[in-house]
Amino acid sequence: MELGDSGLTIAVNAVMSLTAFFLCLNIIPKFKEMFLKANLCGIDLNKENKNKIPEALGVVCGAVFLCTMFLFMPMPFYKQLADNTPGKFPHHEYIHYLAALLSICCMVFLGFADDVLDLRWRHKLLLPTFASLPLLTVYFININATNVIMPKQLRWLLGFDLNLGPLYYLYMGMLAVFCTNAINIHSGVNGLEVGQSCVISLSVLIFNFTEMQGEHRMGHVFSIYFMMPFLAVSTALLFHNWYPSRVFVGDTYCYFSGMTFAVVGILSHFSKTMLLFFIPQVINFIYSIPQLFHFVPCPRHRLPRLNPELGKLDASYTVYKTGSLNKMGQIFVKLFSLFRLISVKEGVGENGLYTQVNNFTLNNFILRTFGPLHEQTLVIILLAIQIICSGVAFIIRYQLAKIFYDS
Amino acid sequence: MELGDSGLTIAVNAVMSLTAFFLCLNIIPKFKEMFLKANLCGIDLNKENKNKIPEALGVVCGAVFLCTMFLFMPMPFYKQLADNTPGKFPHHEYIHYLAALLSICCMVFLGFADDVLDLRWRHKLLLPTFASLPLLTVYFININATNVIMPKQLRWLLGFDLNLGPLYYLYMGMLAVFCTNAINIHSGVNGLEVGQSCVISLSVLIFNFTEMQGEHRMGHVFSIYFMMPFLAVSTALLFHNWYPSRVFVGDTYCYFSGMTFAVVGILSHFSKTMLLFFIPQVINFIYSIPQLFHFVPCPRHRLPRLNPELGKLDASYTVYKTGSLNKMGQIFVKLFSLFRLISVKEGVGENGLYTQVNNFTLNNFILRTFGPLHEQTLVIILLAIQIICSGVAFIIRYQLAKIFYDS
Repeated sequence: MELGDSGLTIAVNAVMSLTAFFLCLNIIPKFKEMFLKANLCGIDLNKENKNKIPEALGVVCGAVFLCTMFLFMPMPFYKQLADNTPGKFPHHEYIHYLAALLSICCMVFLGFADDVLDLRWRHKLLLPTFASLPLLTVYFININATNVIMPKQLRWLLGFDLNLGPLYYLYMGMLAVFCTNAINIHSGVNGLEVGQSCVISLSVLIFNFTEMQGEHRMGHVFSIYFMMPFLAVSTALLFHNWYPSRVFVGDTYCYFSGMTFAVVGILSHFSKTMLLFFIPQVINFIYSIPQLFHFVPCPRHRLPRLNPELGKLDASYTVYKTGSLNKMGQIFVKLFSLFRLISVKEGVGENGLYTQVNNFTLNNFILRTFGPLHEQTLVIILLAIQIICSGVAFIIRYQLAKIFYDS
Repeated sequence: MELGDSGLTIAVNAVMSLTAFFLCLNIIPKFKEMFLKANLCGIDLNKENKNKIPEALGVVCGAVFLCTMFLFMPMPFYKQLADNTPGKFPHHEYIHYLAALLSICCMVFLGFADDVLDLRWRHKLLLPTFASLPLLTVYFININATNVIMPKQLRWLLGFDLNLGPLYYLYMGMLAVFCTNAINIHSGVNGLEVGQSCVISLSVLIFNFTEMQGEHRMGHVFSIYFMMPFLAVSTALLFHNWYPSRVFVGDTYCYFSGMTFAVVGILSHFSKTMLLFFIPQVINFIYSIPQLFHFVPCPRHRLPRLNPELGKLDASYTVYKTGSLNKMGQIFVKLFSLFRLISVKEGVGENGLYTQVNNFTLNNFILRTFGPLHEQTLVIILLAIQIICSGVAFIIRYQLAKIFYDS
């Protein structure tokens, strides 16, 4: 396939993405009633009114994305399909599309099942692993590059590259689980889940278009085919999910989004650069560890708390009896407060001394430092951080990498 | 691949199917609480007690089936995977598995969305069409046989075979829509949806094993790989869905089941024989036409009616003002009652003369003829009919076909 061909199919993809955008923009409000009737709804805890807001509308995006891709899939192969000489069809390329969509479809399905049924943690970790199996098999068949090139400074010790073998597959399997859950826990404010996904997909698209003339052109073109419709349906959803939200996106959207990024990163073979676009999510994940692993009590919702008098958001706190933390919990609280990463307050309650610390999320960290903030201001700050981090990611990828690798 | 290899992978598939059977048997009851909590439940209209019964448990079967197939998928290629010489992998075979699972996964997802959201008819027809696109593309790439061999008696007129071209693709697309909906409308009695699917899959398996030494061996082996785990998860579901049902299977199961049959029929290239195993469904569909197309009033539920005194089921009736039917409706009622296919009763109500005819389904036809019957007796009779029709299908396929075709 020559570049001219890719240009044409990218244009077709762009037109289809635009159609998908308008379709989503138009049908999402129409589905609201259906979701409310099915009791798929929640109350926005950061608002004074307690209206029911339809939940899990990400499933509409996911369905439109899948349909768009089903229609688009034959396009990159239109010449070979028109020709249709037996044995000439590039099955090894087509297989990428099928495996990618199979994994994404599984995750949209799983996310929706989670929103409806409230699945347990073991299902949430087990099923994405199964869903990434076809992906890893196709990677094994077609690419099977499991070596990591070493930085110049370490080559005297470890050689030019290090073959990770099965460990590399473990890494890729974990990438899928990480991406889906990382977006899911960096949430809780209107528009944040979709907003961050839009920034990430836009960054990936910039990266793909930059690299399109390079060595791994086909991978980047493949990524563009997925990222454009994804950005399109996400932007349409963001419109309805922006402050004040008329719809919620649900776990469905987070799973859909995370898996799409993982799929593209793995099959286009730029998973490390993909991770660079996840800097805020990685920071939020590391910051969350004490609560995620229950060293510090983790309430069901860690989202900020509405201050009704100001109409602004404050950091939310978790409360525990002073001295009741286990050893690890104590170390984390000491360490984090030493570096001023958390606010610790002590007080006397009915049952004696208690301690409260802000919940360990990026949202609460920002509110603790700059708050109280209006919800819309907070989400704009968080998305600005996401954009700045994408800038940093590009600097790392293109400038810093020169120090460690040959151009 | 030699037969010895197929034998080994079939054995592996059988072991995995058995595992899937016990897994499903074990976990379905455990999910009941979760489904009730999510308000995914219904009342069994044919029982006196009005307990809530969890609905859409077919989704558990679908998920276990998909996970089993994800794990199994590399097995038929274990030699090539172990060898892993670049360019040697049979991508054109692997692509069948991916496309098949993609279509099935889409349908399980769609079915579950339908159970939760109560989708409209346009979605129910549109989405399966999209879901079968990858399948048809793969058929085009790999098989693209669109010719139908003519019966001997017609060859003087039409030639040896007739190339249907795009019409054949239309036929296959409609097959997917037909299979899913045909099972969905032949239902309403405990255990019927799953029971008929078990009989069909068993019939397909017998056909596959019979044909395994023949010309299209690979297709039949492919079918066996899908049918065995399908039969396994279905049998486990049947155990819990048998009279009196502890769980309902939902549209999810009907969609899952129908698409699995369509996929296997299309990709293994025996879609006409597959249709032969759908004789009762085809009869039920044709019999239903006057109500499906609203020539005769069609109530939301057409299932039989409980006679509480006898504890048995009676045929259910649809009522309309005498003379209020349109022309087509009148013709259908006259024609059907002429051949004694329906019972017509007339009476005088508050608003004048009214007519009642039994609902146009196979269930009601049997109850009208032999009823009233106990629910379990009715489902046994219906499954017996399904088995007898499978026998007829084999006679048509192997005996009658000789008259029209060379062996």
